[in-house]
Amino acid sequence: MTHPFDQSIALSPVSAHRFSGQTCPAYANMVGPFGGTTAAVMLNAVLQHPSREGEPIALTVNFAGPVADGVFEIEALPVRTNRSTQHWVLRLEQGGAVCATGSAVFAQRRQTWSAPEAQPPQDMPPADTLPRSPLRGGAPAWVRAYDMRFAPGEAAFHLDGQEQADSRSRLWVRDEPPRPLDHASLAALCDSFFPRIFVRRRRLALIGTVSLTSYFHADSALLAAQGEQHLLATARALNFRDGYFDQSAELWGHGGALLASTHQIVYYKE
Amino acid sequence: MTHPFDQSIALSPVSAHRFSGQTCPAYANMVGPFGGTTAAVMLNAVLQHPSREGEPIALTVNFAGPVADGVFEIEALPVRTNRSTQHWVLRLEQGGAVCATGSAVFAQRRQTWSAPEAQPPQDMPPADTLPRSPLRGGAPAWVRAYDMRFAPGEAAFHLDGQEQADSRSRLWVRDEPPRPLDHASLAALCDSFFPRIFVRRRRLALIGTVSLTSYFHADSALLAAQGEQHLLATARALNFRDGYFDQSAELWGHGGALLASTHQIVYYKE
Repeated sequence: MTHPFDQSIALSPVSAHRFSGQTCPAYANMVGPFGGTTAAVMLNAVLQHPSREGEPIALTVNFAGPVADGVFEIEALPVRTNRSTQHWVLRLEQGGAVCATGSAVFAQRRQTWSAPEAQPPQDMPPADTLPRSPLRGGAPAWVRAYDMRFAPGEAAFHLDGQEQADSRSRLWVRDEPPRPLDHASLAALCDSFFPRIFVRRRRLALIGTVSLTSYFHADSALLAAQGEQHLLATARALNFRDGYFDQSAELWGHGGALLASTHQIVYYKE
Repeated sequence: MTHPFDQSIALSPVSAHRFSGQTCPAYANMVGPFGGTTAAVMLNAVLQHPSREGEPIALTVNFAGPVADGVFEIEALPVRTNRSTQHWVLRLEQGGAVCATGSAVFAQRRQTWSAPEAQPPQDMPPADTLPRSPLRGGAPAWVRAYDMRFAPGEAAFHLDGQEQADSRSRLWVRDEPPRPLDHASLAALCDSFFPRIFVRRRRLALIGTVSLTSYFHADSALLAAQGEQHLLATARALNFRDGYFDQSAELWGHGGALLASTHQIVYYKE
């Protein structure tokens, strides 16, 4: 049986650089699909493109307009291939309208001096000792597609309107049902953090991610070694000002390796 | 007299969405131009495009191949204009070859609940009490186009090969000669940090920024209020692995407002 995530990123070739896909009900958001699957399916257009060389290191997706439930087309254009890197320009369209633009860089990694600098949080209890975050009534479908376990004393977000001093979160997260980690699912996980303004203000707001950039620090072998385990994740904002806030987050594998770091800027309305 | 930075980002219209520019010797890098001016001139193509609405909030530039000294063309294509945001797709070409791709999001900002979350470093002595970082022989021209003043005990980077535990920097930085701050110069400042691997390993390495994303937290009025003063800046890396490291940095205005946050992934070779 195909995992719903694989349904959500499935593509059929239309022409040399065009693919068609369709949204998957399991990843529905309040309106249209979860942005993480939109990012993942745009990355997948490159992953399955016959000209693709190497593995993803950077992905930017700009959410230009709403994606409606149903079919869409993605253009993935290889614009330059170098010895170490390959540059792709991406576009997602529905009915001739541009819903998302983006770019991806793929790379041939070679073994070099390597070293971590940032460290994962040291005091997280193991995932299996924490309860899965309760599923709220009214939450969109995609939330049920992730198993999230927040640090003791933390929650996805509170709704008592008592503003916090920060919007930091620490959690374990994995696909639900479990699925072996790969670059496509990691790209979607990069957008699985609840909007920082919900956390900070402890109330809901109208929001929309405008632009999302993710860096992949791990090759497919390191991702495969994670299997179906939870990843350790951290997220925060730097600033909320006049309708836009940023978010930065990290996803760590077991053993403490940084797998991805991700940044986005988000529109909000009070 | 035109400031060299304004020369470096000057563009002439070629056709509806195409502009021509040329590299400026004052911003020469080891090979070709400083990446910060490449990012700034791509942003400037949108800033001066007659269809532009609003002000920049996000800019991504992918450095696909070397830019040679001399003329280049930039295509800036408005692909979608919404009530609050406008999405642009960017490309820089020389002789028919794609040297850089990118995207920009411009936005109409409206006054909302706003709050900082991150804070600038609290213990930086004023810029005028610190010496300007000495200019090394052999440094590329663009380094002389910035006045950098590092925190006491810090330096641009050391070259004794004694690896540090981190790659953090704190510094004051402004254009040299001074120039009133705007979005274009801020876009260039976002790429003015020395490669984190030089700081971490205290030795030079062959490096090249692959992809750069900057978020603008300030509108043009807040930037204009900075005038020609130094900005306070912080930079660090999360991870160095198998040929690629990331960098995140912030630029703060006087009064402590976050003006820009910026992220990049960089190729390195030992």
